[in-house]
Amino acid sequence: MAKLKIFSGNTNPEFAKKVAFHAGVELGHCKFGRFADGEVQIEINESVRGTNTFVIQSTCPPVNESYMELFMILDALRRASANEISAVIPYYGYARQDRKVAPRAPISAKCIADLLKTAGANRLISVDLHSSQIQGFFDGPVDHLFAIPTFAREWRERIGAGDDYVAVSPDAGGVERVRAFAKRIGCSIAIIDKRRAGPNQVESVNLVGDVKGKVAIILDDMIDTAGTLTQAVDSLLKNNAKRVFAVATHPVLSGPAISRLKECGVEKVWVTDTVPLRPEAIACGKIEVISVAPVVAEAIKRINTHDSVSALFD
Amino acid sequence: MAKLKIFSGNTNPEFAKKVAFHAGVELGHCKFGRFADGEVQIEINESVRGTNTFVIQSTCPPVNESYMELFMILDALRRASANEISAVIPYYGYARQDRKVAPRAPISAKCIADLLKTAGANRLISVDLHSSQIQGFFDGPVDHLFAIPTFAREWRERIGAGDDYVAVSPDAGGVERVRAFAKRIGCSIAIIDKRRAGPNQVESVNLVGDVKGKVAIILDDMIDTAGTLTQAVDSLLKNNAKRVFAVATHPVLSGPAISRLKECGVEKVWVTDTVPLRPEAIACGKIEVISVAPVVAEAIKRINTHDSVSALFD
Amino acid sequence: MAKLKIFSGNTNPEFAKKVAFHAGVELGHCKFGRFADGEVQIEINESVRGTNTFVIQSTCPPVNESYMELFMILDALRRASANEISAVIPYYGYARQDRKVAPRAPISAKCIADLLKTAGANRLISVDLHSSQIQGFFDGPVDHLFAIPTFAREWRERIGAGDDYVAVSPDAGGVERVRAFAKRIGCSIAIIDKRRAGPNQVESVNLVGDVKGKVAIILDDMIDTAGTLTQAVDSLLKNNAKRVFAVATHPVLSGPAISRLKECGVEKVWVTDTVPLRPEAIACGKIEVISVAPVVAEAIKRINTHDSVSALFD
Amino acid sequence: MAKLKIFSGNTNPEFAKKVAFHAGVELGHCKFGRFADGEVQIEINESVRGTNTFVIQSTCPPVNESYMELFMILDALRRASANEISAVIPYYGYARQDRKVAPRAPISAKCIADLLKTAGANRLISVDLHSSQIQGFFDGPVDHLFAIPTFAREWRERIGAGDDYVAVSPDAGGVERVRAFAKRIGCSIAIIDKRRAGPNQVESVNLVGDVKGKVAIILDDMIDTAGTLTQAVDSLLKNNAKRVFAVATHPVLSGPAISRLKECGVEKVWVTDTVPLRPEAIACGKIEVISVAPVVAEAIKRINTHDSVSALFD
Amino acid sequence: MAKLKIFSGNTNPEFAKKVAFHAGVELGHCKFGRFADGEVQIEINESVRGTNTFVIQSTCPPVNESYMELFMILDALRRASANEISAVIPYYGYARQDRKVAPRAPISAKCIADLLKTAGANRLISVDLHSSQIQGFFDGPVDHLFAIPTFAREWRERIGAGDDYVAVSPDAGGVERVRAFAKRIGCSIAIIDKRRAGPNQVESVNLVGDVKGKVAIILDDMIDTAGTLTQAVDSLLKNNAKRVFAVATHPVLSGPAISRLKECGVEKVWVTDTVPLRPEAIACGKIEVISVAPVVAEAIKRINTHDSVSALFD
Amino acid sequence: MAKLKIFSGNTNPEFAKKVAFHAGVELGHCKFGRFADGEVQIEINESVRGTNTFVIQSTCPPVNESYMELFMILDALRRASANEISAVIPYYGYARQDRKVAPRAPISAKCIADLLKTAGANRLISVDLHSSQIQGFFDGPVDHLFAIPTFAREWRERIGAGDDYVAVSPDAGGVERVRAFAKRIGCSIAIIDKRRAGPNQVESVNLVGDVKGKVAIILDDMIDTAGTLTQAVDSLLKNNAKRVFAVATHPVLSGPAISRLKECGVEKVWVTDTVPLRPEAIACGKIEVISVAPVVAEAIKRINTHDSVSALFD
Repeated sequence: MAKLKIFSGNTNPEFAKKVAFHAGVELGHCKFGRFADGEVQIEINESVRGTNTFVIQSTCPPVNESYMELFMILDALRRASANEISAVIPYYGYARQDRKVAPRAPISAKCIADLLKTAGANRLISVDLHSSQIQGFFDGPVDHLFAIPTFAREWRERIGAGDDYVAVSPDAGGVERVRAFAKRIGCSIAIIDKRRAGPNQVESVNLVGDVKGKVAIILDDMIDTAGTLTQAVDSLLKNNAKRVFAVATHPVLSGPAISRLKECGVEKVWVTDTVPLRPEAIACGKIEVISVAPVVAEAIKRINTHDSVSALFD
Repeated sequence: MAKLKIFSGNTNPEFAKKVAFHAGVELGHCKFGRFADGEVQIEINESVRGTNTFVIQSTCPPVNESYMELFMILDALRRASANEISAVIPYYGYARQDRKVAPRAPISAKCIADLLKTAGANRLISVDLHSSQIQGFFDGPVDHLFAIPTFAREWRERIGAGDDYVAVSPDAGGVERVRAFAKRIGCSIAIIDKRRAGPNQVESVNLVGDVKGKVAIILDDMIDTAGTLTQAVDSLLKNNAKRVFAVATHPVLSGPAISRLKECGVEKVWVTDTVPLRPEAIACGKIEVISVAPVVAEAIKRINTHDSVSALFD
Repeated sequence: MAKLKIFSGNTNPEFAKKVAFHAGVELGHCKFGRFADGEVQIEINESVRGTNTFVIQSTCPPVNESYMELFMILDALRRASANEISAVIPYYGYARQDRKVAPRAPISAKCIADLLKTAGANRLISVDLHSSQIQGFFDGPVDHLFAIPTFAREWRERIGAGDDYVAVSPDAGGVERVRAFAKRIGCSIAIIDKRRAGPNQVESVNLVGDVKGKVAIILDDMIDTAGTLTQAVDSLLKNNAKRVFAVATHPVLSGPAISRLKECGVEKVWVTDTVPLRPEAIACGKIEVISVAPVVAEAIKRINTHDSVSALFD
Repeated sequence: MAKLKIFSGNTNPEFAKKVAFHAGVELGHCKFGRFADGEVQIEINESVRGTNTFVIQSTCPPVNESYMELFMILDALRRASANEISAVIPYYGYARQDRKVAPRAPISAKCIADLLKTAGANRLISVDLHSSQIQGFFDGPVDHLFAIPTFAREWRERIGAGDDYVAVSPDAGGVERVRAFAKRIGCSIAIIDKRRAGPNQVESVNLVGDVKGKVAIILDDMIDTAGTLTQAVDSLLKNNAKRVFAVATHPVLSGPAISRLKECGVEKVWVTDTVPLRPEAIACGKIEVISVAPVVAEAIKRINTHDSVSALFD
Repeated sequence: MAKLKIFSGNTNPEFAKKVAFHAGVELGHCKFGRFADGEVQIEINESVRGTNTFVIQSTCPPVNESYMELFMILDALRRASANEISAVIPYYGYARQDRKVAPRAPISAKCIADLLKTAGANRLISVDLHSSQIQGFFDGPVDHLFAIPTFAREWRERIGAGDDYVAVSPDAGGVERVRAFAKRIGCSIAIIDKRRAGPNQVESVNLVGDVKGKVAIILDDMIDTAGTLTQAVDSLLKNNAKRVFAVATHPVLSGPAISRLKECGVEKVWVTDTVPLRPEAIACGKIEVISVAPVVAEAIKRINTHDSVSALFD
Repeated sequence: MAKLKIFSGNTNPEFAKKVAFHAGVELGHCKFGRFADGEVQIEINESVRGTNTFVIQSTCPPVNESYMELFMILDALRRASANEISAVIPYYGYARQDRKVAPRAPISAKCIADLLKTAGANRLISVDLHSSQIQGFFDGPVDHLFAIPTFAREWRERIGAGDDYVAVSPDAGGVERVRAFAKRIGCSIAIIDKRRAGPNQVESVNLVGDVKGKVAIILDDMIDTAGTLTQAVDSLLKNNAKRVFAVATHPVLSGPAISRLKECGVEKVWVTDTVPLRPEAIACGKIEVISVAPVVAEAIKRINTHDSVSALFD
């Protein structure tokens, strides 16, 4: 069995520390900084020859800095004769660009997967990928971890289950995720169908499904600017939902996200710690974090001891 | 500009003939047979040096035979110095296995894409892929063609549009496709949410959305055994839909599909000719074919003359 | 030393069971079936992380089904983090297409080798490849096992050796194989030289070498339709061979093979169990099977313990 | 001959415009922006099928943003069926990390070259690479363009040549570049040899060669923080150089560069426009820009017409 | 149509000149020499951008020098932006090592094919490969040219055909080549079966087939040390062949070959000019050269104009 | 930990023996010879399955033979299932061709690195590469070992240090190497600047820096024809250096090198044993060899036990 080493990039060091703690190892000694002109500067202060190395780097904003730093770390480990190199990317940036959304668009999520491979990653570990097809983008084993089971278990234990609840997809693409949650809670589902009749016409927001008098839980893989989310909250309240909650794995929260969350009628937003929260996000009082560090740590341990990772989610 | 040649594999020769006709060329002279032991036997009876070659092979059942034949044709063309080789796969078999559906499952749709590349395909052309992320699986340009615009235009012209109709997704994964159709028809949407409470419990079929008194159009990318479809039809009628239609690009129609279609309450099923219909399918009287050969032919012509393919769908 | 696991595809499960038995392990728990539309369905019911995995799949008819099933199993194992994946293909289908036999023909045996590599095979193990150059087609280590030494030893022990025998090649391409056998038996050789003077002329069958009064043993790597073999038998008897036997590693026996064997003057046909015999083949009474499962099992054990495989044939 | 298209990334649009002007074409219609979360957003508003496409992107600071934007543009062009895609990188960021400078360091310049290839670049065009070995890092043709001949010609014409001048290398690695310039000016050379006796000791700056009473021209491929340069200027003046100039291709000018230039005794600094100057750099009055846009444009034209690029520098 | 350029390496410049003459072009201006330490020195004195380049290099002795020179030329052409680069290797050295002849042997012919591809060859053109499976070793199109039809036509025209002749294979591996010749001459075949009973026993040479009173023609792809050939000649004469000739494509003639030819009873040896003859070979008076330069030239022209090469041998 | 095996090619067997001795293992049993026609003949007489194999081959003249032999050994090891294969190339031939030195020149050092990878090398170990960027040419881990620290230590101990000495670069490209040595000796540096005013003019040799009355040590990575070296010696003596020594890692010594060394005013030349000395080189009396076999052996041991190699040079 090769020796296990965990290194942390710069985007989410708190998360990496927690993972290392739960995995029972110390974080590897390294310093990943920047030169005066912004180029990544790598210092790995211990030998990695023959080790199984895991680099934890969430590729949340600044997303491009995060990826370039990760590429350089991977290149350094590869040339330093590490045995197997796993890129642990709790939040996989660019995941929404997983298909050509317009003529001559890139498939950025695929391009990223190829760049990771080229830079030196042998394996990819990620949490709640925007679409599960992204697993097929990476040329090597992918260990895809899930937060939905954790969220659902917590919800059942702390809040409840059954017909009083309705799980809501804020758009047409996320219905499968909503269904997975609804099955565990034993509740019904609803979908928001936004549509614009023409170029200069107002967008209409239709709710498909019944939410009247129910506690609505909006589910998504991430919250970016929170525009989609707040529209969904408004629509649910307008349709007489009793209370509205949101559950989303990755709290990217860019631009106006936090002020929108504060102002809209959502009671509480459950997220994980794949993306670090800025102080104002913590201060807004509506966000609750459920850590996935233990599940990532357990997966790393099992990968290193050749035990089943899928058994984690049985 | 390199010379254009079109060859046809064995699965859907009628379709290939139509495409060649619309593209204004004759099909290339070839014979793709089998030896006594079942191995593919290739005879390409004209030089392909320096040509842009398009091989049309729908990978419908017998799907494994179809793919192996295609691999051998691609290998032959590659070694015969064809300039660019495009695999034209109107129906892309194995597309539903586009992610790991279980622990230790293959991602067959990705594996197929890699095998196509290895065998010699430089480009992939396909119609209504089960998920658009499959575009990212193939390492080369992909021209993804759509039947939905054709279906919607025909529906508006021949049947109607607006609030009398409702577009229905038979499962949680296909809601985006339904939305694309619904927008063009100007109608609302509904979703079938099938669920099984436990291992030995009956499956419950819930309808999310309102269909009462409406003409329901079930949309899917394909009809395989028609099990999902007939459940949806039953549910819609039980919920007082006025009439029920189905629109699906690829009529795979395996096993009990045709008898199910005959027995269930669907009035008409619109499909394309990406998969050839067996005589009993034609005989059942409920199936209407709208050809996508003209759109495939137009795409081939544009690829060869370096004109925009996306402009086809503006 | 990594843990050893052996899985069996669907084409020759009896052979796989024997190999596992001789290797001293149980076959891995798995089920490789088909969906309604014919697509391969994979269920691997135990973890393979970090194991050295051997997949046994003879690619006899239905050859295309056999290969596609194998590709999908390899893809599944690769994504499931198996350490080293060996494709054990006792009979390597498409081996006769190992060069361009006509203009614009594929080199199918090479294409297959590339597809195996792409799908996930790190190593190839096979028995009596049609030509030994196929070893060079696969980009990775190849362990090529031989049945000729086993056949020759059995022949010497059970029947005899020396000048009473003559080893016969049924065509010009197999003379080296015949020579290898003849050396071990200490007998002379003869060759069948079939030729057709022109497009519409009768084929003449000439025998080069002396067989009069001798026991003739026709040697080939495989028997497909048995056409070549029965012609050779007739020619040998016409040239006053005393008795005629045949020895061939792979009993593919397609089309009219069995009825031809029954009707022609061959006394006995020795084959191995790389290809399973159909009931009518067993019933015909002329076929005797000498198992190569022990030699395949021994090779697998040595590969796993890093012992010499070539030493097996010293 | 394929059609020529030039696109510009965001780092140096003025330079791209000049190149397009000199190449006699219009810049391609596109918009490369950012989403709210910082992900690159690509809009290419014209077909690029079958064209020879050149993407101009200097990878100056913000260097990581520049590269990620370039990768996504390359991926988009590749999937949009461009014929040949050339990455035109006037200033190649990360070039100084062209070897392992410490144990477990990356070779970032090589990693970048591999990422460019993976993202879709078929060809690389660059100006005055930090070391010419970087040409060997990219797996494809590289057209390496030079500013030294232009600088030397301008110097001879506007200032002079011969023994009154001395060309100075500010460190041990750049002596070949200095020699190339000195040969064209017909002057002698000198080298700055900085050294630190131990960890806590002051750095000593030794001048090797004779500069007394001469006009010294410090040559370098780039000016980053200008620390090395100002040390060289001080040393030259202390050793009684009459006047001190500097010539450097890439004006990266990060951190304290501009204030250092202002304060030190250099009279004038000649640079090119591979990196755009910030307003304060222009305002400092010591910097003079000699454009290499004409030479880049001429190279692009010759590449497209298959004429010799090396002949440009004869 | 891209411009055609032909360059010649150092091993067989006379042959290259003839090919260029027949192809109607001048040889490209270049000089491929050696530095003092033996490293290959490349000077290509004309632009090759966008051209279809053919490098003619027979890899006869000094075989290792020949290949290394060829690799460097290919690398130079690739980096100089040639469009398509064809390695024209009339005699493919290392072809006999086309399979593992012993445990832990290389498959040198495959290794060479991979090195050619890596160095920059897109296409391989060769004459009478030792085994036709070598076509499958090269990852790209291979144009395999044949001398047998030329030899047979010359033989019929100048000497005769029919039952007075017998075509003889000097070993078990070359019977197919002999058969191809015999069919064209309308004569019978014979095989030499050499065998050694044990490690210290004399080799016995058996002749299979009838040669008494006939004109025997020994056929082989090459003559190396001529040991096999002279043994065959002796055996044929001992078995009362009337006269003995030899026909072999590649006159490698190493070590004692020429003195052996002189001393043995062969009347005449027909060879081609794929390998240049040393003066003593010409002087021995038994060797007659039939040029394949016209057929190589014709193939090159057809490749460049996208015409069928296989049609050359119909 | 995999078993360690060391094999030696033919170019420097004495060195390989020393390395094996210091590594505490016996050289592997093998014989790498030549066939009559010059093709490499490989015999590896022991199993290498699963071992970590190191092949020691200095690629000194005959450089092309050396590389081809190495490629074939690598291919053999790869096919024989060695676990990891390291090419140990103490002197890396073709290293000076590490960039395009002229239009249409190859980058031979990169081409070689790619060929090594293709032939089967997973890792490269070398001593004092001509330029450290070559590390980036090989696609895999590179362990770059240094002789300069050994040379400097020996010099300090046996001769002295400080201002009485001056380290001299014989050309503009080697100044960094000279600086590394000078720092350890605590001496100043000087550079030879050779220049030719025009095509038919005499080359002038200028000395930059002060050598008067000092002991000059010319440093270079190699001595080839010794032309550059003797020019430097003459120039140093003309400029009144007290004594002149030379230190160079690789004693290639081709053509007139030895007679030049004998005749010029250099007192002593220190070299390593990466290249074997011919008898006349030993006889000339000016050459002293300092072995790097211990450092290569130590590196191999550390690689096999996964210990830090860089720590060797701290």
